[in-house]
Amino acid sequence: MKKWEIAVIPGDGIGKEVVPAALDVLQAVADVHGGIAFSFIEFSWSCDYYVEHGQMMPDDGLSTLRNFDAIFLGAVGNPKLVPDHISLWGLLLKIRREFEQVINIRPAKYFRGLSSPLAEPRDFDFIVVRENSEGEYSEVGGRIHRGDDEIAIQNAVFTRKGTERAMRYAFELARKRKGHVTSATKSNGIFHTMPFWDEVFADVKRDYPDVATASYHIDALAAFFVTRPHTFDVVVASNLFGDILTDLGGAIMGSIGIAPAANINVNGNYPSMFEPVHGSAPDIYGKGIANPIGQIWTAKLMLDHFGEEELGALLLRVVEDVTADGVKTPDLGGTAATKEVAAEICRRLREHA
Amino acid sequence: MKKWEIAVIPGDGIGKEVVPAALDVLQAVADVHGGIAFSFIEFSWSCDYYVEHGQMMPDDGLSTLRNFDAIFLGAVGNPKLVPDHISLWGLLLKIRREFEQVINIRPAKYFRGLSSPLAEPRDFDFIVVRENSEGEYSEVGGRIHRGDDEIAIQNAVFTRKGTERAMRYAFELARKRKGHVTSATKSNGIFHTMPFWDEVFADVKRDYPDVATASYHIDALAAFFVTRPHTFDVVVASNLFGDILTDLGGAIMGSIGIAPAANINVNGNYPSMFEPVHGSAPDIYGKGIANPIGQIWTAKLMLDHFGEEELGALLLRVVEDVTADGVKTPDLGGTAATKEVAAEICRRLREHA
Ligand SMILES: CC(C)[C@H](C(=O)O)[C@@H](O)C(=O)O
Ligand SMILES: CC(C)[C@H](C(=O)O)[C@@H](O)C(=O)O
Repeated sequence: MKKWEIAVIPGDGIGKEVVPAALDVLQAVADVHGGIAFSFIEFSWSCDYYVEHGQMMPDDGLSTLRNFDAIFLGAVGNPKLVPDHISLWGLLLKIRREFEQVINIRPAKYFRGLSSPLAEPRDFDFIVVRENSEGEYSEVGGRIHRGDDEIAIQNAVFTRKGTERAMRYAFELARKRKGHVTSATKSNGIFHTMPFWDEVFADVKRDYPDVATASYHIDALAAFFVTRPHTFDVVVASNLFGDILTDLGGAIMGSIGIAPAANINVNGNYPSMFEPVHGSAPDIYGKGIANPIGQIWTAKLMLDHFGEEELGALLLRVVEDVTADGVKTPDLGGTAATKEVAAEICRRLREHA
Repeated sequence: MKKWEIAVIPGDGIGKEVVPAALDVLQAVADVHGGIAFSFIEFSWSCDYYVEHGQMMPDDGLSTLRNFDAIFLGAVGNPKLVPDHISLWGLLLKIRREFEQVINIRPAKYFRGLSSPLAEPRDFDFIVVRENSEGEYSEVGGRIHRGDDEIAIQNAVFTRKGTERAMRYAFELARKRKGHVTSATKSNGIFHTMPFWDEVFADVKRDYPDVATASYHIDALAAFFVTRPHTFDVVVASNLFGDILTDLGGAIMGSIGIAPAANINVNGNYPSMFEPVHGSAPDIYGKGIANPIGQIWTAKLMLDHFGEEELGALLLRVVEDVTADGVKTPDLGGTAATKEVAAEICRRLREHA
């Protein structure tokens, strides 16, 4: 019996609704398999926690998490309680950084049973490899002067090591897929870092003569995600560009509520973290109608990470079947509650036992 | 007789095809009106010029441009000849900066006769007000170390003055429209500058209690441009975010080839510059099939800027009629050449004489 210990952080808003739903599904997956088990330990770290304790997680939070096999996270952020940059840098971004989760993988594909906002969605299927440790997301910078003279400066920091690592990850991934990597750049407008990005891309590409490549400025690329998403395979992007492109990936699938993500620690020295692309959606929290698919598909990425790829593939197939059969939440045009979607997925999974 | 002197810079690639087409149309506009005239002086500054002269424009380029009533520009960039950051910072971005064209306005609307990639495009009609003088586009930063240790740092610089100016422009514009401003932020991830952006927005908003507002992180907002573009009126965004959002605006209209833009010098101390959103498209240059509508709609923004708003409205109506009647370039599903589209627009304009 293989057993995985998972630290569960539902976080804020709908995270508290979709995480329990996904845990039920993971339990059903374990039941189907027979030879694996999960233990889930839950942590209530969130904006509510901040209001009570003045911090997003306890001082020993990271050392508590460190020995788990993975972290399964819902969503973080409730700007009514805590400014976003405080809550995110105190929990989500802190874990990504401290646990060296340097790569963020985010698949998007044409999903059966969803109505894409695109007139002709075609059969797209791509993965965005997002650099997850540096770039535009940095605490370097600050402010000077007050009032009318105030200036805020933000440093985007790109290292050769971090940039190259993300690109190599993308090329390796492309080799297992359709053999194509697209680089998201903006070297015409972002003067220092993006020409650097292009140079590193040109260097790395030389080591993968079997992989075809393209490079587009982020503005054009965002437009192409709308006009011809089926032409992409693996897309490598900086932290910010990856963030924007993957919400677009969610949008063209039919809902940001289904998009999954994995924050990967490539060295295996710390746990990786699995969290969907969507946020905490405070506006719909509490109604029991949040779409659990993003969280459940994220659980599939965790299964893949544990080497249980067959099980992961089964899970995704079942999720698509259930969606195609119309058991879906209101954001997808259905009438099912969060729990009903999860229950139906569990029921069908158990048929495979 | 009112007369405007216009500096014309076709630039690179399809700029050299769509600019002459738009000049023909402007001439037809003048003929229709009877009481106005344009004089066009052309400058060949471009990447080809760089190859010959080692710079994108002559040393006295700016002082030559300075006394014109406006600058009408096609597209800049040909990475095969000159790296993008050199060509853009040597011409387009240089003019935007030096002539204090601090605001970039970019309308997008449901356009008759185009097939949007969206299944239900609805009747959207919004304007993105892009901060055009600072932010993520800055020459501040650099590199250190070589090889594996290389680091590139890019400073994004946001001043209170620049940020507030763009926001006030957006609020004033909203008052003349549907009274709604959306702020594009990313204060959850971009630690220093985006919380500052939010603070300035909150301050400016207090002066416009009659204008409704919303604020979204750029990732979510990009997705909303695909899922519900009809809900936006005026969107205010930083330099980079405005760049990305407006290519998306072009995409949902049906082609980036039709999207117009105006770089506005708000003090009137230097000329403003009019250039479409699209680039130089070296891949289709030379075939005579480039879509001239972006450049022609841009000419309409120039007419508005000269106070000839009725004439501008007529021009846009004629362009939409011609498009709806199927006289359009291949990128829009038509078979017309660049020149044919322009000729048909001129012909119909002259019917109004
Ligand atoms: C060519 C490039 C520097 C420019 C920009 O990013 O501003 C273009 O994309 C635009 O939108 O005008
Ligand atoms: C919440 C926010 C900081 C985060 C990000 O921008 O990385 C989110 O948008 C995501 O994509 O995971």
